[in-house]
Amino acid sequence: MTKPVCVVAGIGPGNGAAFARRFAADGHAVALLSRAAEPARELAASLPDARAWQCDVGDAGSVARVFDEIRGALGDPEVVIYNAGSGVFGTFDDVTAADLEASWRVNALGGFLVAKQVVPAMKRAGRGNLVFVGATASRRGAARTAAFAQAKAAQRSLAESLARHLGPAGIHVSLIVIDGVVDLPRTRQRLPDKPDAFFVKPDDVAATAAFLVAQPRSAWTFELEARPFGETW
Amino acid sequence: MTKPVCVVAGIGPGNGAAFARRFAADGHAVALLSRAAEPARELAASLPDARAWQCDVGDAGSVARVFDEIRGALGDPEVVIYNAGSGVFGTFDDVTAADLEASWRVNALGGFLVAKQVVPAMKRAGRGNLVFVGATASRRGAARTAAFAQAKAAQRSLAESLARHLGPAGIHVSLIVIDGVVDLPRTRQRLPDKPDAFFVKPDDVAATAAFLVAQPRSAWTFELEARPFGETW
Amino acid sequence: MTKPVCVVAGIGPGNGAAFARRFAADGHAVALLSRAAEPARELAASLPDARAWQCDVGDAGSVARVFDEIRGALGDPEVVIYNAGSGVFGTFDDVTAADLEASWRVNALGGFLVAKQVVPAMKRAGRGNLVFVGATASRRGAARTAAFAQAKAAQRSLAESLARHLGPAGIHVSLIVIDGVVDLPRTRQRLPDKPDAFFVKPDDVAATAAFLVAQPRSAWTFELEARPFGETW
Amino acid sequence: MTKPVCVVAGIGPGNGAAFARRFAADGHAVALLSRAAEPARELAASLPDARAWQCDVGDAGSVARVFDEIRGALGDPEVVIYNAGSGVFGTFDDVTAADLEASWRVNALGGFLVAKQVVPAMKRAGRGNLVFVGATASRRGAARTAAFAQAKAAQRSLAESLARHLGPAGIHVSLIVIDGVVDLPRTRQRLPDKPDAFFVKPDDVAATAAFLVAQPRSAWTFELEARPFGETW
Repeated sequence: MTKPVCVVAGIGPGNGAAFARRFAADGHAVALLSRAAEPARELAASLPDARAWQCDVGDAGSVARVFDEIRGALGDPEVVIYNAGSGVFGTFDDVTAADLEASWRVNALGGFLVAKQVVPAMKRAGRGNLVFVGATASRRGAARTAAFAQAKAAQRSLAESLARHLGPAGIHVSLIVIDGVVDLPRTRQRLPDKPDAFFVKPDDVAATAAFLVAQPRSAWTFELEARPFGETW
Repeated sequence: MTKPVCVVAGIGPGNGAAFARRFAADGHAVALLSRAAEPARELAASLPDARAWQCDVGDAGSVARVFDEIRGALGDPEVVIYNAGSGVFGTFDDVTAADLEASWRVNALGGFLVAKQVVPAMKRAGRGNLVFVGATASRRGAARTAAFAQAKAAQRSLAESLARHLGPAGIHVSLIVIDGVVDLPRTRQRLPDKPDAFFVKPDDVAATAAFLVAQPRSAWTFELEARPFGETW
Repeated sequence: MTKPVCVVAGIGPGNGAAFARRFAADGHAVALLSRAAEPARELAASLPDARAWQCDVGDAGSVARVFDEIRGALGDPEVVIYNAGSGVFGTFDDVTAADLEASWRVNALGGFLVAKQVVPAMKRAGRGNLVFVGATASRRGAARTAAFAQAKAAQRSLAESLARHLGPAGIHVSLIVIDGVVDLPRTRQRLPDKPDAFFVKPDDVAATAAFLVAQPRSAWTFELEARPFGETW
Repeated sequence: MTKPVCVVAGIGPGNGAAFARRFAADGHAVALLSRAAEPARELAASLPDARAWQCDVGDAGSVARVFDEIRGALGDPEVVIYNAGSGVFGTFDDVTAADLEASWRVNALGGFLVAKQVVPAMKRAGRGNLVFVGATASRRGAARTAAFAQAKAAQRSLAESLARHLGPAGIHVSLIVIDGVVDLPRTRQRLPDKPDAFFVKPDDVAATAAFLVAQPRSAWTFELEARPFGETW
């Protein structure tokens, strides 16, 4: 019996790892994509039927190669969690054209490249899930997110185009807007005085993604927030 | 052992009944509020620990009386699903000031009146859930929704104010935007040529509400859509 | 030769007076509507072809009476600046159902009642302008605007419905979102340390309304902000 | 006496040419930037104190070279109308990664590169204007705008970041959302049955840009639409 395949693109210590653990626990074979070889490899080793691939999601050749291997090793992906998305913070004065381009490649172009790899099989199957992981910056260009927000806005718009186009083909495209600081060793260190309630817990974000993937097609969600209850918004 | 109390305001044959069935099945004592005595009474009779109340949610006296009785009979509500919300369709030329007012009373003022009844106890408990049931019109004033959309926009804005204010007190306020035609005998009759996939299934909307109510406080959603996969948007 | 008629609903010392001065200077006969008899009467006396009416815009009878008189005295209005819109500030805990209703009547229902009075003649003429004066709260329900924001959201949604419906009939409906503190004796007194640049100048808001009214029909604006350059948003 | 300098980036037969004519008529020395040498050269020849430059706005080197020349020839720009923005239409199935990248370079990155060239002098002067020309796709990712909308969304987000950051420095950043079909020989040919009222007139869009540039700093607009009155929205 073959397990359904879930790709998690973008593996860090926070949300990426939580997505991988959750979808593995829910019975998926999980492909972990990350720019660095470690720690995705280590995480994969700790999960049943999981494997890690090094991948630069902003590079078409890298994406094509890795998805060829995933298809060969695990089969056609049914679920993609697109969590790649680091970005430089800073105002217009602080950031460079290279910052804008790097952010756009990882957040927007990479989502398109990955979708191009998985959508044809999803169409044949008449089902599939693409979950994009956004941020506050997906909705708003703040003074201090001149490079990051334009990339997240492009990602959100792309996700919306895909959702409208692919929905009738049975493919559910959705966006989780994370509006808060993710609970990580380094954010805890940077914000030592903040209470527990200040942080977004990766396992709870993963549960949100699992909910979106499980939604029946009569009541799909395109966009929702994951926001800690104490957050000011 | 006491069951947690869930109030469903607005009981029709579609979403309202589905909310009631779902929260009863999930172990709540359910209070059903509807303008007409029937069929809420009949529905209540079919559910464990459920009771129906006749209530005009746009009338402060009626709301105060009914919630006094609910508290006495079942205890303090922990969950409110605010599903009251009929509205007249029509353009500016078609609708009257009375239509605007009736729609605003049921959709917006009623949500406030109900919140005033339940929030104090929720604050004491440090927990609680208010789920508002919106519509496409919550986000957009179309030509043909001159009376309905203004009421739904007021409701959405009110829900947002409550969410921001009450979140830090542990009370989760959220909004389900139903963007599609609900599957009902009368909508099926009106649209006989539409396929199954065209309609929003009430049980799936109820599952969405159950998800919102169960969300851990590190990753709350304020607003999401429930939209059938074949819908054009 | 008859002057075109402009109605300014809502006359205070700030924007309302500036609208009246501006449209009088631009060659309109101006009807000033305000809840209190003074100071609108005094302002009207200082302007050419201007007259003041006492009017409760949230009351259908009052609106009908006053517009009958305006039509008799000045002719059919070609321009309405809907500036009525005071509101109580406060969180959900602070405000009452009466606050919500009063705010909704003045901001939303009143706009509808006034539109009902002027749109038929505008349709016959194939032209006309309705400019609504909104606020930051038109777009967002903040914790401290539980009564005001729901009314402003209703107003915005109504304006949008009207704009979509009446545009093809040659009637331009628009919304100015004032996102800042208006420069008034009392706001200056309340914020004595703020520099000039902190405040929105009523004459500049009036110039914005004049621009909207003068827009050619190939390039109409529905919504724009008036925000002081130093404002944080 | 030196004229203030206005740069119009993106010169086609429609809006670009209209911006150039309008700002020349309003007393600016105008620099016309376009990818092709003609017809910008021809247009420049027909205007007082205008000059055309060939420029690939998505290429940092090209932008730097051209702005060096503009500064030498005309002085520091006080106004930039960023009108570069062609894009391929098509669904996710139709478009390529190259389409997404080309669209993003012209619409978003180019706006950043141009801003980097002009903002330092604007900061020293304490004044300046950047007007971005957007489209319906700036706000929404439709099924058929998978490549174009993500670029326009990135542009809008970037403009918003710049507006928030540069406003307090006296630099006004704004966005015109063109929501309709521009009146051009080729759009007229493609839509021969549409009435005049269907089209957005470039001169009226140029008047909107002139209004934004002239706004006093107490009441700046960030975003507005230019929409023909008969448009369905």
